[in-house]
Amino acid sequence: MTKYLPDHLLNGYRAFLANRLPQERDRLRDLAEQGQHPKTMVIACCDSRAAPETLFDAAPGEIFVVRNVANLVPPYEPDGEYHATSAALEFALHALKVEHVVVLGHGGCGGIHAALSPSAEPLSPGDFIGKWMSLLDPVSKAVGANDHMTARERQAALERIAIRYSIANLRTFPTVEALVQEGKLSLHGAWVDIASGELWAMDPDTGDFQRPLAGE
Amino acid sequence: MTKYLPDHLLNGYRAFLANRLPQERDRLRDLAEQGQHPKTMVIACCDSRAAPETLFDAAPGEIFVVRNVANLVPPYEPDGEYHATSAALEFALHALKVEHVVVLGHGGCGGIHAALSPSAEPLSPGDFIGKWMSLLDPVSKAVGANDHMTARERQAALERIAIRYSIANLRTFPTVEALVQEGKLSLHGAWVDIASGELWAMDPDTGDFQRPLAGE
Amino acid sequence: MTKYLPDHLLNGYRAFLANRLPQERDRLRDLAEQGQHPKTMVIACCDSRAAPETLFDAAPGEIFVVRNVANLVPPYEPDGEYHATSAALEFALHALKVEHVVVLGHGGCGGIHAALSPSAEPLSPGDFIGKWMSLLDPVSKAVGANDHMTARERQAALERIAIRYSIANLRTFPTVEALVQEGKLSLHGAWVDIASGELWAMDPDTGDFQRPLAGE
Amino acid sequence: MTKYLPDHLLNGYRAFLANRLPQERDRLRDLAEQGQHPKTMVIACCDSRAAPETLFDAAPGEIFVVRNVANLVPPYEPDGEYHATSAALEFALHALKVEHVVVLGHGGCGGIHAALSPSAEPLSPGDFIGKWMSLLDPVSKAVGANDHMTARERQAALERIAIRYSIANLRTFPTVEALVQEGKLSLHGAWVDIASGELWAMDPDTGDFQRPLAGE
Repeated sequence: MTKYLPDHLLNGYRAFLANRLPQERDRLRDLAEQGQHPKTMVIACCDSRAAPETLFDAAPGEIFVVRNVANLVPPYEPDGEYHATSAALEFALHALKVEHVVVLGHGGCGGIHAALSPSAEPLSPGDFIGKWMSLLDPVSKAVGANDHMTARERQAALERIAIRYSIANLRTFPTVEALVQEGKLSLHGAWVDIASGELWAMDPDTGDFQRPLAGE
Repeated sequence: MTKYLPDHLLNGYRAFLANRLPQERDRLRDLAEQGQHPKTMVIACCDSRAAPETLFDAAPGEIFVVRNVANLVPPYEPDGEYHATSAALEFALHALKVEHVVVLGHGGCGGIHAALSPSAEPLSPGDFIGKWMSLLDPVSKAVGANDHMTARERQAALERIAIRYSIANLRTFPTVEALVQEGKLSLHGAWVDIASGELWAMDPDTGDFQRPLAGE
Repeated sequence: MTKYLPDHLLNGYRAFLANRLPQERDRLRDLAEQGQHPKTMVIACCDSRAAPETLFDAAPGEIFVVRNVANLVPPYEPDGEYHATSAALEFALHALKVEHVVVLGHGGCGGIHAALSPSAEPLSPGDFIGKWMSLLDPVSKAVGANDHMTARERQAALERIAIRYSIANLRTFPTVEALVQEGKLSLHGAWVDIASGELWAMDPDTGDFQRPLAGE
Repeated sequence: MTKYLPDHLLNGYRAFLANRLPQERDRLRDLAEQGQHPKTMVIACCDSRAAPETLFDAAPGEIFVVRNVANLVPPYEPDGEYHATSAALEFALHALKVEHVVVLGHGGCGGIHAALSPSAEPLSPGDFIGKWMSLLDPVSKAVGANDHMTARERQAALERIAIRYSIANLRTFPTVEALVQEGKLSLHGAWVDIASGELWAMDPDTGDFQRPLAGE
């Protein structure tokens, strides 16, 4: 029969069948029967180099993952419109009762780059990326206008600022704030350097990023 | 120092450092220097059991991934609102110039289950899931009302219908339709059974799902 | 002498004489002397690809088999008309005292296809197939009208629905219901995929079909 | 998981998977893709000892099989009632265009025995067997009343008479008669002795039964 998927995916699936599936078979059967019970939700970027399952060596069932461009969380807007990220957050908190939400950014993010190039042509007439990245307008202007930083420094700065802003937006959801106050939910920020695989985690008190395993 | 991330993620990251990173070091350095050039975009579900990187054994840089609840693509709406999925699609087509878009569904999807339980209480007052899954209203009613199918059969039917509907919605984006017509872009549907890891791929002519490796 | 049977049957009979008969000789002699005592009745389709003896590797004497188009059981109708299937059921329960009745369906059933094409021309002026398949009218309408399912999906759905409906009809026979209540009779549903030989069995509690040997 | 089928069928299915399926895989795939095209329809008895696939060593796709009690064909009755056997015949002739119809009887038939014991109690209040076997009333009375034959001789005689009567009933279907006249369809009678596996075929000119391979 015709093969209906790109060859590289079929080859990858063959490798999954040969190597990973035999190890995970019991786990997958249990997960199918009993449903998923992940403790952690990860909000990550669509970037092909920043899969949280790879970085955290996550097993099936371990993390509930939203991926959008630049791993953004919009502010709470119960306006009856379609909100992909808010819907996923609602599901994670109310149906799955996760204990952790992690916003995971990464170096060299194309969405952040677009947010710092506001005069650029829209990618298409619909300008969906322009609109989407305008979510960062409240925090990106100051960085974008800072001529004393190099382009690379502005990029790295906004990548971290955006993570902190998404976490602040998370707290505009009444349920998030309530669960955090009750000690039932923790919010985390993290950032990974693509070239080296180095992971940085946000200090929730100061907002600074540090290597969590430094000194091990 | 304090560890700012959940223990299970830090343990997973240690495993990544020990096992995966040494194998991927050169690849990651190249990907950081030259940027990502994935050939394929995957639109997948947030479900913790349905990571496309695991199923397709995908290497860093291989697939650009959106994940939202129930792997939905909304129809083209250039209305100036925030559209996470449309923004990612625009980025994949115009900036990355991917050649394939795959909509990947899975068995036991909680979002599809919610779409088939319209009378249920909203998960939260914002009812983000209710609104998000109402994207499927045009196709879910007929299935939901069929009392001769079991709950599981209605679920499995809507999981496939939703994939076809998302692919139809993809084609409402003028760029998608143009690229498909020019032979520069292929659209694919796939569905995975969590319990068995079995992958089914959509025949683009009929919409039917079949096992792409059957007979190997 | 003239051979009064089609060549392919005579050739098959020669193979039976050479291979199978020598193995079964004692069993056949016992079965002829002592009569048949099958524990299981199978209601199967006439389809040439769906012989229960082949699928279940059944020995002579093992299964009592009715075969009609689409493996249907009509509801109990003690109206004095000729009822081939009800007669066989009566014989199996009262004369043979079978302990199991299995309704065995299969993929790609031509009768089910006819039930989903009600506007098609009758095959002949007598329209026996049209009338016979109208037994499914109470359950086929909802599936037939669902334009969001592919033709193949509607077919697969009705194949399963019809099995459940036949089992429900079995229970309209007072003897069947009484024996089931006394724990002396079990009713089963099964479905086989022609292409792969994969067997699916019905969960009597939910009506869902699952692979009974999955995980062996 | 629970196994939803009788153990003897599951064990038989395991044997099918291990032995027969590997040999038939290509054939089954072709049969699923291209549909069935059997050249021959067999009308056989439900008896567990008389499976035509076993006797004729038939491969999947080779014979289209109706099985009812005593392998009877009722006369043509286009009365709008449900007729399982007539429906199958219509399908075989008009949809499958078979070239042969074989009525296959066997020794020790319980249905024929019931036809010869008309005063016996009905098996159940519905008396479906009594009604079904009354199809033979036009031909069974003379045999039943013949005190000069032993019970075993009466049984063997009616088994053959019933085959000839079913073939005569076949010719009451206008399509059957037309196809026979055009030389496109052949009608055959056969009878098998359970104890010995001996096959007898009907001479269409005289109605006598002979061993078709005698002298090989």
